[in-house]
Amino acid sequence: MVSKSVLLTCNAIKSLKIQGARNIAKAAVKALAHQAKSSRARNASEFISELLEAADILASSRPTEPMLRNSLRKALRFVFFRLNLENTEDISVLKERMEHEAREFESNMRRNSERIAEIGSKLIPKNSVVLTHCHSSTVTAILIRASETRGIKQVVCTETRPLLQGRITAKELHNAGIKCTLIADSAVRASIAEFRPAVVIVGSDAISVSGELINKIGTSQIAELANSRGIPFYCAAEIYKFDPATIWGKMEDIEARPKEELLSTLKPSSSLKGSFFGGIKLKGVDAFNPAFDRTEAKLITSYITELGIFPPQSLSGIVSSELGIKNPI
Amino acid sequence: MVSKSVLLTCNAIKSLKIQGARNIAKAAVKALAHQAKSSRARNASEFISELLEAADILASSRPTEPMLRNSLRKALRFVFFRLNLENTEDISVLKERMEHEAREFESNMRRNSERIAEIGSKLIPKNSVVLTHCHSSTVTAILIRASETRGIKQVVCTETRPLLQGRITAKELHNAGIKCTLIADSAVRASIAEFRPAVVIVGSDAISVSGELINKIGTSQIAELANSRGIPFYCAAEIYKFDPATIWGKMEDIEARPKEELLSTLKPSSSLKGSFFGGIKLKGVDAFNPAFDRTEAKLITSYITELGIFPPQSLSGIVSSELGIKNPI
Amino acid sequence: MVSKSVLLTCNAIKSLKIQGARNIAKAAVKALAHQAKSSRARNASEFISELLEAADILASSRPTEPMLRNSLRKALRFVFFRLNLENTEDISVLKERMEHEAREFESNMRRNSERIAEIGSKLIPKNSVVLTHCHSSTVTAILIRASETRGIKQVVCTETRPLLQGRITAKELHNAGIKCTLIADSAVRASIAEFRPAVVIVGSDAISVSGELINKIGTSQIAELANSRGIPFYCAAEIYKFDPATIWGKMEDIEARPKEELLSTLKPSSSLKGSFFGGIKLKGVDAFNPAFDRTEAKLITSYITELGIFPPQSLSGIVSSELGIKNPI
Amino acid sequence: MVSKSVLLTCNAIKSLKIQGARNIAKAAVKALAHQAKSSRARNASEFISELLEAADILASSRPTEPMLRNSLRKALRFVFFRLNLENTEDISVLKERMEHEAREFESNMRRNSERIAEIGSKLIPKNSVVLTHCHSSTVTAILIRASETRGIKQVVCTETRPLLQGRITAKELHNAGIKCTLIADSAVRASIAEFRPAVVIVGSDAISVSGELINKIGTSQIAELANSRGIPFYCAAEIYKFDPATIWGKMEDIEARPKEELLSTLKPSSSLKGSFFGGIKLKGVDAFNPAFDRTEAKLITSYITELGIFPPQSLSGIVSSELGIKNPI
Amino acid sequence: MVSKSVLLTCNAIKSLKIQGARNIAKAAVKALAHQAKSSRARNASEFISELLEAADILASSRPTEPMLRNSLRKALRFVFFRLNLENTEDISVLKERMEHEAREFESNMRRNSERIAEIGSKLIPKNSVVLTHCHSSTVTAILIRASETRGIKQVVCTETRPLLQGRITAKELHNAGIKCTLIADSAVRASIAEFRPAVVIVGSDAISVSGELINKIGTSQIAELANSRGIPFYCAAEIYKFDPATIWGKMEDIEARPKEELLSTLKPSSSLKGSFFGGIKLKGVDAFNPAFDRTEAKLITSYITELGIFPPQSLSGIVSSELGIKNPI
Amino acid sequence: MVSKSVLLTCNAIKSLKIQGARNIAKAAVKALAHQAKSSRARNASEFISELLEAADILASSRPTEPMLRNSLRKALRFVFFRLNLENTEDISVLKERMEHEAREFESNMRRNSERIAEIGSKLIPKNSVVLTHCHSSTVTAILIRASETRGIKQVVCTETRPLLQGRITAKELHNAGIKCTLIADSAVRASIAEFRPAVVIVGSDAISVSGELINKIGTSQIAELANSRGIPFYCAAEIYKFDPATIWGKMEDIEARPKEELLSTLKPSSSLKGSFFGGIKLKGVDAFNPAFDRTEAKLITSYITELGIFPPQSLSGIVSSELGIKNPI
Repeated sequence: MVSKSVLLTCNAIKSLKIQGARNIAKAAVKALAHQAKSSRARNASEFISELLEAADILASSRPTEPMLRNSLRKALRFVFFRLNLENTEDISVLKERMEHEAREFESNMRRNSERIAEIGSKLIPKNSVVLTHCHSSTVTAILIRASETRGIKQVVCTETRPLLQGRITAKELHNAGIKCTLIADSAVRASIAEFRPAVVIVGSDAISVSGELINKIGTSQIAELANSRGIPFYCAAEIYKFDPATIWGKMEDIEARPKEELLSTLKPSSSLKGSFFGGIKLKGVDAFNPAFDRTEAKLITSYITELGIFPPQSLSGIVSSELGIKNPI
Repeated sequence: MVSKSVLLTCNAIKSLKIQGARNIAKAAVKALAHQAKSSRARNASEFISELLEAADILASSRPTEPMLRNSLRKALRFVFFRLNLENTEDISVLKERMEHEAREFESNMRRNSERIAEIGSKLIPKNSVVLTHCHSSTVTAILIRASETRGIKQVVCTETRPLLQGRITAKELHNAGIKCTLIADSAVRASIAEFRPAVVIVGSDAISVSGELINKIGTSQIAELANSRGIPFYCAAEIYKFDPATIWGKMEDIEARPKEELLSTLKPSSSLKGSFFGGIKLKGVDAFNPAFDRTEAKLITSYITELGIFPPQSLSGIVSSELGIKNPI
Repeated sequence: MVSKSVLLTCNAIKSLKIQGARNIAKAAVKALAHQAKSSRARNASEFISELLEAADILASSRPTEPMLRNSLRKALRFVFFRLNLENTEDISVLKERMEHEAREFESNMRRNSERIAEIGSKLIPKNSVVLTHCHSSTVTAILIRASETRGIKQVVCTETRPLLQGRITAKELHNAGIKCTLIADSAVRASIAEFRPAVVIVGSDAISVSGELINKIGTSQIAELANSRGIPFYCAAEIYKFDPATIWGKMEDIEARPKEELLSTLKPSSSLKGSFFGGIKLKGVDAFNPAFDRTEAKLITSYITELGIFPPQSLSGIVSSELGIKNPI
Repeated sequence: MVSKSVLLTCNAIKSLKIQGARNIAKAAVKALAHQAKSSRARNASEFISELLEAADILASSRPTEPMLRNSLRKALRFVFFRLNLENTEDISVLKERMEHEAREFESNMRRNSERIAEIGSKLIPKNSVVLTHCHSSTVTAILIRASETRGIKQVVCTETRPLLQGRITAKELHNAGIKCTLIADSAVRASIAEFRPAVVIVGSDAISVSGELINKIGTSQIAELANSRGIPFYCAAEIYKFDPATIWGKMEDIEARPKEELLSTLKPSSSLKGSFFGGIKLKGVDAFNPAFDRTEAKLITSYITELGIFPPQSLSGIVSSELGIKNPI
Repeated sequence: MVSKSVLLTCNAIKSLKIQGARNIAKAAVKALAHQAKSSRARNASEFISELLEAADILASSRPTEPMLRNSLRKALRFVFFRLNLENTEDISVLKERMEHEAREFESNMRRNSERIAEIGSKLIPKNSVVLTHCHSSTVTAILIRASETRGIKQVVCTETRPLLQGRITAKELHNAGIKCTLIADSAVRASIAEFRPAVVIVGSDAISVSGELINKIGTSQIAELANSRGIPFYCAAEIYKFDPATIWGKMEDIEARPKEELLSTLKPSSSLKGSFFGGIKLKGVDAFNPAFDRTEAKLITSYITELGIFPPQSLSGIVSSELGIKNPI
Repeated sequence: MVSKSVLLTCNAIKSLKIQGARNIAKAAVKALAHQAKSSRARNASEFISELLEAADILASSRPTEPMLRNSLRKALRFVFFRLNLENTEDISVLKERMEHEAREFESNMRRNSERIAEIGSKLIPKNSVVLTHCHSSTVTAILIRASETRGIKQVVCTETRPLLQGRITAKELHNAGIKCTLIADSAVRASIAEFRPAVVIVGSDAISVSGELINKIGTSQIAELANSRGIPFYCAAEIYKFDPATIWGKMEDIEARPKEELLSTLKPSSSLKGSFFGGIKLKGVDAFNPAFDRTEAKLITSYITELGIFPPQSLSGIVSSELGIKNPI
């Protein structure tokens, strides 16, 4: 029987109360631990069935999220392989192990973040200009570390329409004492000419076997501009973002966000000089509002992961073994 | 003595009551005609001095606007060359001529628009998808003509942050019965992959001697994306947009728009699913908000003008003679 | 009344008895001359009406052929401008003039060919390898001249499916003593690696105002390969191939050739080692068989014309004045 | 002593009675099994010598075919490693094992095909246009699977001169109910503009350590066109196509096919409108007729293999271990 | 009879006593004037024959130098066209005119230089970094003007092996108070990454009809690097550098400089840390030492001339009319 | 206690008496062996401490040299892992092992060189032209092997300013009977057009995890030119050149060489025709003189190593395991 905690977690994920790939993964693994703790299973086999069922339910709460699936798989490796378990028929041993895995997962998450911040910060030349897109806590951690250890001249942030997550980035960096310049998404090319960023750095939603990055809409056109000017384009990502199903041909679905995000009218806080046309109503006009786009491996200099830096084309080999992905043959 | 009408027109231009390169040029030429009509000059020489002074004042109301300067120069060609004037010392003859020129200018403007709409519409393949940026009445005229004569499958419009002029385009096209899809400025690359537009077409603020286009911020990155995928990129522009001063090394200044346009908070009309971050206050964050960017000649397939279609590199030759630009040697 | 000769010429053009842009133009101008000679018009006005009607009929025999229209227009310039005509009301004077124009046209054609051969031959480095596509008598004339004056190491000819005009080129060059290597159309990239041609040179069917070349299907992909490897790509073309209507937005139609050309089975003269699959019947399979493709100006190094060499972007200016194209404003 | 079956198989391969990399490999492994079965060896050592000699002879029947060598090496792994063999001195055990390996090989081939069809089909977007070149049973299997599971709008097939294998592809796809359009090899660029294929997919003859694809002449120019337009270019290939000798510097030889294939005259079944020049005799003209060309790794999106999808640059690592290639150090 | 002054000038040019395109042209026109002054011709026809013969001899002293030929042609235009000459049979009138032309030529040269410096200086953004190659007095004039009017942050100069003319540039700029950084020719790419120059600007030896620049060896690889990074690449050139013979197919010859320039050993003034290998003798080693290379039009943003700024593709039209080049038809 | 031999070796490395990555590594490992031999340690633990201290000191003599660090690490693997050591507490066993490792290292170096020469030589097409930069004994070994086994038409060597190491290459190849042509560093593009090299091949100073090559200044611009023309660009490198610290974000420092190397005047052995400007004094002029530049993975066809050929993106995986680099997680 699946515990209430699992179901509550699922709902919270579905209703977007829990957001962000990392937060979702943490909540799901926590729910697994709770399931284990509160289990009334009569034997190991029953106990394991419950865990697997819980994992399936949790995984289905966000079907396109590789980090969720990878985290559940990693947390349950002991179930599949019975590794380092002396008495695998003793439920209390299994319960303890599940709890241990959940604690480990949480502390690993923290350590991975720190490690990525540390590694990534070294790729930013001293006192240089950095361009970023949208908001990624991994990226802001890198920038803050770089700012502390080697200095950053300025970070140029796109505002990232339609939801304007670039404002979160701008705020966080400004609060950390980093000079920050907000630009319209359409001003990337002009900003590259004006500010000559030394590097571009973005986060990640998912990574495919071919090294393709799925990230916030707009990422790929920035990557194309950077690539054709010889500006390194880095993606900071825990390896949990790698989607092993892409090895077998799965194409990442791109979430179609509500058209309202583009079509609803907008009202600015201050009256703007010159006209502002956000008040025009657009009844009958259609909208195309994908959450993400695809950035091909050839546009990406490298991925910055907790395991180190990797060229996009070599990621699949390294990650597969780390995540315990079985070869189907 | 400069007439009140000239001064009023100047003010209206400066305070943005009169907007848009075409409207400004029309108002300025009209003001010249009024100056002539109400002149109390005692002789031809005095009359002409007044006109030239008026033209100088009008030109200075928007110093970076080539169409304004070109229009004034064209309207006053009879002054410089005394062409087809029988008695150039008779003020009434000169007054009449000035009025005639203003009428001609107005009707030329109209005819040019129609001609560009006609010529441009032929470049749009039957029932194809078109991508456009910002708002240009010349471009919408072309699209409406094309829709009437050959059918348009759909027009993809960027919303064009920060002022969202793309909404005007969407509205006008929708009202003309053309299917219209609004996208975020960051979704251009994804939209090209999704909708596979047959052509991109934009308007123009100014054109330099090297065939470089100065147009709404964002234009150049769309042009770069289109060019690297072999999609024709057209600019529809009356030849008045050509800035002859660039022949002598003038670099078009790019207007820096108020930072408020990016930094002021935004409130959407409907509550959006998922978070909307437009409400975050950004005190202390800087902004870079250029009105325009530069699109190099090599990214532009051709200019669509009232004189026909021209590759960007050959425009200067043709336009110089048409606008009566004197060779300085 | 239009003469029988005009109608016969039209039919011969339509039924492909007369082929090739040059032959068609010559026949049409000849027919005009015959029309003039055999005219029974009672006055100059009637005579001219007949000529214009004949020209219209002749032009319509091949509506997509700019050389035909340009030649007729050039031959009739005296009618439009009455240039150098003493008594333009005397029919015999007009008849004589028409005959004179036809003779002039024929000898100009010859002279132009020689001039293009002369100019083009200088662009071929001594003893180098040349790559060409399809068959163009202008190109073979250049190659033969170059072979005589500076030596050619070898010409690589595509066979040019589906009609295999490359065999004509191979035959003509071989007969002129030039070493010639035939390749499949799919072997262009491998041949560039193998033979490292110094230049590519092709003929032309039509040229647009933007400097775009309309030529035998396959031309544009050879141009793209040459361009990205820094190999000069020349097009040899009399300026009559320039289509002035493109200035006003006309898009050259691409002739759709019969699908039979691709779908009918083929039988080789000798039994080939390995299997040959030309005998497979393809009932129900569709085919796409355009006669020409479009090569953008940016892929073309220059046009070789009887007026000299021109970069594609500057051709329209030069040609317009030479062909007497009136500016519509 | 090598069995008669081995020699017969060798001859059949050399005389092209057995064709196609897969068929050749299957026949060779079968011949090995027959050799084992009919062996009169007196001890294990003699038995193994015979097998190795047979493998050498079979491998030499097609020296440039990596699949043949890889298959023989795989089938004989038990000989090298004595894996899972209880009594390796008992000839009957070895015989049985050889037979077992041959059966395994055959069923693996079948399973691999199915797996590649399954994986590859997922890379084809719903109801999209696909472009392919030449004929590959692996590719047609993918297309048929995709057509069944997600729908295909149309497949554009090059005819693939000189042997016209594109007709086989067209026929097979048409029979499977897929709309199919045949084009000349020179019409690839025009077809991309006309039909806007979502993906290009081809088969493989050999793959080098750098991820370079050796495939039917013409493949590389299609890849270059696709790559510069952002169209994914996939190669479907069993990992047996990987040539391990390239790790040590071997350059794949490109087979020079008979010049007759290009130079012999052709006769069409129907009289074609317009002239057909296939009848022109080309005595003295040379021909360049390579069977294959090389497509560099950077032009290939990924390889579709039975082990999953891989970026070209990571293939060597994965495949080496799978094929049991020994590191020489 | 040709004057002694003409022959002396010829010798001085041939023996490199007079160097640099501008100095050669000035000396030659001066020699023409001297020829005219000292002429003992008995009539206008004889006088003109002498002048033409002198011009031929002077032109032949440096056959590959377009500026020399253009200057002679321009100075003798009055001979060809008898423009503005009242009595063309009066030798004293002709003598006077020749002297006048020579004076005009000299003062034009000066004025053109100033004009180019003025125009060119405007293309250099305020306080930016500029990259230049070799030495050109036109370029240093532009840089000094820009430094005075808008400030220059730094000029990066290649040393320009083998003759090290970059040292002249460095010295002149340093003396004018401009910060100057010398680099090896191999450090251009690294310098672009390090210093991010806003523009590249070079001089010119000759310009062809297709807008191709012939300039000091190394120019073209700098242009290719600049172009692929979107850095404007300007060439400053008097229109006399345009070679009209290229219209008729002439390919500019590239002077092969003595191999000694590369092969002779070099001794540095100071003992260098680390080894210096300039002392190694290279008997038997060959060298390739072209004076110039070719930079294609597509790599050049614009030409800066005394007539204004022009895209490379439109130069031929403008220059032809200015230099009085007759159309051969 | 660290032995005198270690300290002497350190000094020799620091003062450049020992130069070249290979020589430095060999000397350092030899010094380790001497340290072991002369050790007076009282127990295994003390003995090992001494060795590790010695290794630290040796590594610090050239902190940016990955080969040195990799070699020391490899030579001491037995210390870390106690592999194949029966009695790891017996100092004499450890001493013997250290000596053995040093001998092994030396003979491995030799064998690796031969192996790279053998593998690399196969990548050079028969009788082709090769372009190389600077001097690398690995590259000359490859070229000499290729010349013996398949013939080389000619090697084009850049002179490689400022230290002119290209003269060493030219001399060595000429002595080995290979035709050799020296060019200025600025003549690479012109030489590619003139000689059409089949491949470019260079050595290596360090290789990063992303496959980026750090090599002599000028390497990257040659790679960019080769890449955009489809010419394979190979780097020959022992895997010891791979810097594992780059996995964790280390950016290779680029050594800034003394400015004197560029600024000191030069005197040629022979008086050159035309002026030579190497004598101009440049007091006050700055110089930028990096020893190396960075060549991105995407510009490199493959690395030629003693383990075989690898695409740059896959190198890190293979090398990490070979060098025994521990994964930090």
